[in-house]
Amino acid sequence: MSQAQVLDGRAIAKAVREEVKGRVDRLRERNVIPRCAIVLLEGDEPGRLYAEQIAKSAAPLGVQIDIRQLPSEASTNDVVVAVAEAVDDKQIQAIMVQRPLPAHLDAERIAEEIDPRKDVDGAHPYNQGLLVAGETFFVPATAAAVMELLRQPQVGPLDGARAVVLGRSAVVGRPVALLLTAANATVTICHSHTKGLPAIAREGEILVAAVGHPRFVTAEMVKPGATVIDVGTNFIDGHFVGDVDHDAVAAIARLLTPVPGGVGPVTTAVLLRSVVEAAERSR
Amino acid sequence: MSQAQVLDGRAIAKAVREEVKGRVDRLRERNVIPRCAIVLLEGDEPGRLYAEQIAKSAAPLGVQIDIRQLPSEASTNDVVVAVAEAVDDKQIQAIMVQRPLPAHLDAERIAEEIDPRKDVDGAHPYNQGLLVAGETFFVPATAAAVMELLRQPQVGPLDGARAVVLGRSAVVGRPVALLLTAANATVTICHSHTKGLPAIAREGEILVAAVGHPRFVTAEMVKPGATVIDVGTNFIDGHFVGDVDHDAVAAIARLLTPVPGGVGPVTTAVLLRSVVEAAERSR
Repeated sequence: MSQAQVLDGRAIAKAVREEVKGRVDRLRERNVIPRCAIVLLEGDEPGRLYAEQIAKSAAPLGVQIDIRQLPSEASTNDVVVAVAEAVDDKQIQAIMVQRPLPAHLDAERIAEEIDPRKDVDGAHPYNQGLLVAGETFFVPATAAAVMELLRQPQVGPLDGARAVVLGRSAVVGRPVALLLTAANATVTICHSHTKGLPAIAREGEILVAAVGHPRFVTAEMVKPGATVIDVGTNFIDGHFVGDVDHDAVAAIARLLTPVPGGVGPVTTAVLLRSVVEAAERSR
Repeated sequence: MSQAQVLDGRAIAKAVREEVKGRVDRLRERNVIPRCAIVLLEGDEPGRLYAEQIAKSAAPLGVQIDIRQLPSEASTNDVVVAVAEAVDDKQIQAIMVQRPLPAHLDAERIAEEIDPRKDVDGAHPYNQGLLVAGETFFVPATAAAVMELLRQPQVGPLDGARAVVLGRSAVVGRPVALLLTAANATVTICHSHTKGLPAIAREGEILVAAVGHPRFVTAEMVKPGATVIDVGTNFIDGHFVGDVDHDAVAAIARLLTPVPGGVGPVTTAVLLRSVVEAAERSR
């Protein structure tokens, strides 16, 4: 039984970080220090872990991360005020509000407060809208990470490829579908209402799984020789499990991202690249 | 040979206009007159015809249309100034800039000048962005017309249906794909780089053709019993021809929009409905 080659997110993230480091060094010569505010709510444990991961990756590159934790009972207005402070602060070129926000908060109102020029996680409707226009400024970091993985030379051309995206969230599924369309792939977006999913998924030379269900993608959903990107990070029995049934799919796919070590580290790295881009543009 | 039933755009447009008329009457009781500024450039003959068509439909409903024609050599700044005047005018609740604009103009810059609350043709990135979030405020009128046609009872449920959209423009293909996804259809977006198009198009229980090539969609691209929406309006030998080879496809499809008399009249009617919505919200 042949085994899929691993698309190594850690190695790709390392290459992105090296590029970021060079750009930070050039900014420092102009006395610019890239700085990103991350707004998050107490009690959001995955959000806190992600923010700390970003800070840990950022430090050796010379990128500053300001984590601004608000009480878990913070109101929409409290979050808006925290965002507005970061928007007004000329020393801060980048802002990310940790998502998903609790249901009692108006996520759309909060996203609208972020200056689109500082919106490194592509949350503002303005930045989402450019995707519909076929352009990009800032896109959600996870979607950018999926594209970074799919642009690796071993994946082959996206132009003319058949791609299937499982999941239609505003942070992964829809933006990835639009980014793949802009890259000239032919994209099908599947979701919980899709009928006959296995046969449709099997049409994909590229299959992106962003459904949030552990081991959802089984071997019967994968075209032999496909490239499979696993966006899932489900915490099960003390460890992370992807949306893809890894062992079964590895026997069918040609390229497959692991979990952990796939989309995750690349997401952190491309977010830092966006912070540096925001800092470069801020002059 | 069975013949497809015609999805009659003129009848659907009439029903929409009747609804609009009732809403205009209620606005008048509050001394609000819905008014839309249409900015267009001299020499844009299809744009002028469309604007006149809108004005003609609007008059009996009590909706006012201000056509603001600029010289064909107008600069981006000239158009921005014309838009800004309409944005500042409290008597005008709706603005449309006729698209496509000539290549010498910065269409994105102009779209950004439109107040999203007056942006009845969904051109501003903010309104495009809400589509990525799975929400809608104003969407491009042609995309709204496609959805109006697809929501007719004879079409059947969109939920779970397989839909194929031919074309990925910012005004039709991409927004229609996002609107169909939000309506729980499983959508594939095809375009000029798609390989094996006929077989993919044949997967669609719903097929939306927005490619701008006369009679592009042939019988081999249509699933038997499909609903086919023809967005094309190609002017050939003195009359309008759609993107669908109408006679051949009528033998295969179950429902088919004619050209003219399909998407066109519905587009004008739903645009007027958006003008009334903008006027209703302006209070």
